[in-house]
Amino acid sequence: MTEQCIENDDNVEITLENTIKHRTVNIQDYITQYNNDYSVLLILNQEIAIREAFLKLWDLYKIRICADGGANRLYDFFEDDEELRLKHLPDYIVGDLDSLSDNVKEYYSKNHVVIIRQSTQYSTDFMKCVQLISLHFNSQTFKTLLSTETNGIANNYGITELDGLLRLHKERKAQKKKETIHNINVLALGGIDGRFDQTMHSISQLYVLSKSDSYIKLSYLTPTDLIILLPSGATLLKYSQEFKNDCIGNVGLLPIGQPAQIIETRGLKWDILNWNTSIPTGKLSSSNRFAGSNGCYIHTKDDLVFNIEINLKKLSKYL
Amino acid sequence: MTEQCIENDDNVEITLENTIKHRTVNIQDYITQYNNDYSVLLILNQEIAIREAFLKLWDLYKIRICADGGANRLYDFFEDDEELRLKHLPDYIVGDLDSLSDNVKEYYSKNHVVIIRQSTQYSTDFMKCVQLISLHFNSQTFKTLLSTETNGIANNYGITELDGLLRLHKERKAQKKKETIHNINVLALGGIDGRFDQTMHSISQLYVLSKSDSYIKLSYLTPTDLIILLPSGATLLKYSQEFKNDCIGNVGLLPIGQPAQIIETRGLKWDILNWNTSIPTGKLSSSNRFAGSNGCYIHTKDDLVFNIEINLKKLSKYL
Repeated sequence: MTEQCIENDDNVEITLENTIKHRTVNIQDYITQYNNDYSVLLILNQEIAIREAFLKLWDLYKIRICADGGANRLYDFFEDDEELRLKHLPDYIVGDLDSLSDNVKEYYSKNHVVIIRQSTQYSTDFMKCVQLISLHFNSQTFKTLLSTETNGIANNYGITELDGLLRLHKERKAQKKKETIHNINVLALGGIDGRFDQTMHSISQLYVLSKSDSYIKLSYLTPTDLIILLPSGATLLKYSQEFKNDCIGNVGLLPIGQPAQIIETRGLKWDILNWNTSIPTGKLSSSNRFAGSNGCYIHTKDDLVFNIEINLKKLSKYL
Repeated sequence: MTEQCIENDDNVEITLENTIKHRTVNIQDYITQYNNDYSVLLILNQEIAIREAFLKLWDLYKIRICADGGANRLYDFFEDDEELRLKHLPDYIVGDLDSLSDNVKEYYSKNHVVIIRQSTQYSTDFMKCVQLISLHFNSQTFKTLLSTETNGIANNYGITELDGLLRLHKERKAQKKKETIHNINVLALGGIDGRFDQTMHSISQLYVLSKSDSYIKLSYLTPTDLIILLPSGATLLKYSQEFKNDCIGNVGLLPIGQPAQIIETRGLKWDILNWNTSIPTGKLSSSNRFAGSNGCYIHTKDDLVFNIEINLKKLSKYL
């Protein structure tokens, strides 16, 4: 089949035959979590750059977790506003706690935030958070540990300090009679744009979780982009015209980690057909954008990372 | 062969048998360009974040090129210091010039900076800069065009506005009797940490240029990292103990373009042997660091991206 790239007008209506099977996702749903009891705002250790939207996002998520030094960033975010800081306590702080400042630890501990230390260097703080997220929503054993009064912060809530969360997580997964597994939406702040190996570790987690813990839907919101995994198969990305015009800029189809074949797109400014995309060849659909007035259809043979430029200043209006 | 990961002490001496063939590179050489007549500082369109080091870097490079809106960033860098701004004129501004502000264009044009417009949307501004770099150092035809008085900025220096640089670049490469090709070191600022598809486009150029124009050695300096391509084969990375202690933090071996096999490392905190690394599996050596007192040896079967955390505040001392 011949590779093709077709330049569209800026505003085209796409049609999908009834026979085309696809999943449909609304881009705003990656960010907003109205009435979703299984949603997590994950704050990683980078300056919270999205001031305009952060406080609104906070209210939209069921629980908020700081990965280690992410708690410093949350604490610092409020500067001298003690009242606001006290109103925005995270549900958990987790990690090896090497980065957590003493005063920040003391503050949140005093205010009854659950702080769990996991010292192993063979999991990253990010992975420790994922274990925690899964246990929080899906493990009765974990709930019992936390609520047992004799455990408490001094005893790390009865969780082995080296890698107790990992063990509990593995145990839960190995259970023959599984407890109910809930789908969980996780929006991570601060995993991208810092140290470059950390950025790539964050990206790798998009792929890893889609296989190891597919009930967790992870995405990243950076000062410039929403970054998601577009799984193999056909996806219809929906958006309102208003949201698109206000908030969405460029998009990129990114075969990070391995080459990919994109079978067909409909509704991009530069649509592609039978495209073998890869980073080493430089054949990459970057600086593309949505042209579809009623959505954008992407059919890919292989998993892809997809970034959508988001204007955070205007996003607040939609939160 | 069994995969292994070995944790080393923080400071180990590595030994290399005489029979081991390898290339040797000094990490500082990626940044400093003392007496190198073939070196380019490439300023891309992101805020110049490395204030402490930027002015020192400027003096170390033979020519400086702004990619389109990169010229705005250079202009803005000097704020109200007109004298300093005038002392730091780039050699070229190139791109589709859609991002270049009118006043900035006027200022640099008035001060005789060569501004070349290339309107094609099928090359990125980055690729246009690469074509320019190659022509600047290697093409007599290009030199003649620039120095012909009747050409000048009003006539885009006699270069077709759509894609003249690409054509000249292709012509030069196709010449049977090649002009002398010089090796060129390019340090790019601002290609990483902005819009995520642009970051990935920048990374893809590390792989692409290593094949298409291997005489260009490209690296990126970001506010946190030096990012280079580690080509397949064996490399000994050298550094002085002082520079390492002052400036270098964590490192990452990143198989961004494709899964890779790392045959052996010596001198990392976590050394690896026969390691199949890939982003989709999450098997990634991130948050690693140099432990070798006399260097670090990395033997990889496949090209890898390598990031080295650099403390820019302390870097100035070494420039």
